[in-house]
Amino acid sequence: MSLTVVGSIAFDAVTTPFGSRDKMLGGSAVHFSLASSFFTDVRVVGPVGDDFGDAEYAVLQRRGVNTDDIEKVQGGETFFWRGHYEYDLNTAHTDDTRLNVFGDFSPKLSAASRESDVLFLANIQPDLQREVREQSEAKFVALDSMNLWIETARESLLKTIEGVDCVLLNDAEIRMLTRRPNLVQAARELRALGPKVVVAKQGEYGAALLTEEGFFGLPAYPLETVNDPTGAGDSFAGGFVGYIAAAGGEDISHDTLCRAMAYGTAIASYNVEEFGTERVQRLTREEITSRVAELARITRFDDAPVALRA
Amino acid sequence: MSLTVVGSIAFDAVTTPFGSRDKMLGGSAVHFSLASSFFTDVRVVGPVGDDFGDAEYAVLQRRGVNTDDIEKVQGGETFFWRGHYEYDLNTAHTDDTRLNVFGDFSPKLSAASRESDVLFLANIQPDLQREVREQSEAKFVALDSMNLWIETARESLLKTIEGVDCVLLNDAEIRMLTRRPNLVQAARELRALGPKVVVAKQGEYGAALLTEEGFFGLPAYPLETVNDPTGAGDSFAGGFVGYIAAAGGEDISHDTLCRAMAYGTAIASYNVEEFGTERVQRLTREEITSRVAELARITRFDDAPVALRA
Repeated sequence: MSLTVVGSIAFDAVTTPFGSRDKMLGGSAVHFSLASSFFTDVRVVGPVGDDFGDAEYAVLQRRGVNTDDIEKVQGGETFFWRGHYEYDLNTAHTDDTRLNVFGDFSPKLSAASRESDVLFLANIQPDLQREVREQSEAKFVALDSMNLWIETARESLLKTIEGVDCVLLNDAEIRMLTRRPNLVQAARELRALGPKVVVAKQGEYGAALLTEEGFFGLPAYPLETVNDPTGAGDSFAGGFVGYIAAAGGEDISHDTLCRAMAYGTAIASYNVEEFGTERVQRLTREEITSRVAELARITRFDDAPVALRA
Repeated sequence: MSLTVVGSIAFDAVTTPFGSRDKMLGGSAVHFSLASSFFTDVRVVGPVGDDFGDAEYAVLQRRGVNTDDIEKVQGGETFFWRGHYEYDLNTAHTDDTRLNVFGDFSPKLSAASRESDVLFLANIQPDLQREVREQSEAKFVALDSMNLWIETARESLLKTIEGVDCVLLNDAEIRMLTRRPNLVQAARELRALGPKVVVAKQGEYGAALLTEEGFFGLPAYPLETVNDPTGAGDSFAGGFVGYIAAAGGEDISHDTLCRAMAYGTAIASYNVEEFGTERVQRLTREEITSRVAELARITRFDDAPVALRA
């Protein structure tokens, strides 16, 4: 089934203890679409400026991503983010954000985007997410957000969540949004709003899936080399939602969602090995399959009962 | 194989958002020995004061724990800890610590304790841990510690670690001790000191096992009701080391260690459901087996390859 993602297309300047890049392709819609391109037809919707050139289009197109709905704003500049990470890599510190053309973004879906079977609303202002959702005929809609919107537009975000099938958030954001410290309770509260699927992203600890049918937990793939965590969450979402789209996009079983978690986790782990999209640009399907198998191996244990003492 | 634990025996006063207790049985050696009592013969070594009475001995003895090596200091008072947890339950805030008899603790192992096949050095000053280790003839020795000793007695702790087979620490402590933010690298550095087995406890996110043979990650059991996290780490250690002792105590295979992780995780999850040792006191082996099976179910996924796009 076809998949459309609406979100930011950006240039990022990133410094980590392991290196830096002055200007590299980034943004949630970019990381998401590259990751999901391994599973299905993907269309990316978002604004760029004059500085977004053939080289950037080519990165997406080489992975088969349809760029027809990238809106090029004449005389504008592409969204720019500059940030750095400390030695522990867990927290992104923002040094500069220039919204540029993204500041006036008012997404209008093309006919083809509207007709996509699956829609991913990457992290943008929740009113805009709702406008996009209302234009879409998708059978399965997933959403990401961030602490900024929980703090400044909580009611709007909750209203937007009512209209989607799946919420992907960091676990701290889920707690902040629901004001419930217990993740099981918080996820149930989100599901009561409408979505059947809640995914709690837990960074280096992995991710948890919470549906009516139960819980599934998967650690992150253990890496010795993490060079740049930027885009990990969006790559995870791309693998997760991409798998769902390939699997049919509606009436998603818990088992399918568990497998989708593994594909998201595998692609996110490759993403952070190098800066920005560098690693995922040359990622192969064999590498993805191999890491999913490895994830299964390092999380499996034999639960044959042993004799315990009364 | 028999198991001896050396550590604190305490009275705890704990307040959480869900209730409080003024004086309840606690301490690392107590939580550990109750958890490990489901697997093998357990001896507990530690000092108590006159205030430690028949009711407290009975809690341990009802689970078959051998209390002969509990040292009762005449005229002394038992180690006392008062703390509270905020709404998120992740961090214990200490309000009062009275070491009492624990302040002069100089552990001397009895002949029976010395001859135990497996030894657990619960969190006490690392010089004392080393003294105990040198008295012991155990074939498998595991150790816990805490940030206080990493900050104030790092060299001693590293020296103690050289003499043990397994290190169980919170992942933040492993990073602090090795000064390496990457867990895979940090665990390898600890293994280079001597221990073959490193377990990173990750609180609500579960635990990770890192051996030469590889990595195993297990999420915590998802609970809707957590009343008191006190003792979770020691219950985990008790289940983990207890399983190892039951499995033979030496030449432990990676697969055995993975199963041990599941038993530790299961018992720790029961421990936090109620205050102090309340839940584990009436825990049954059927409940443990059932939760281990549930852990296997909620972490398993089908990794049959799917068709990906080039």
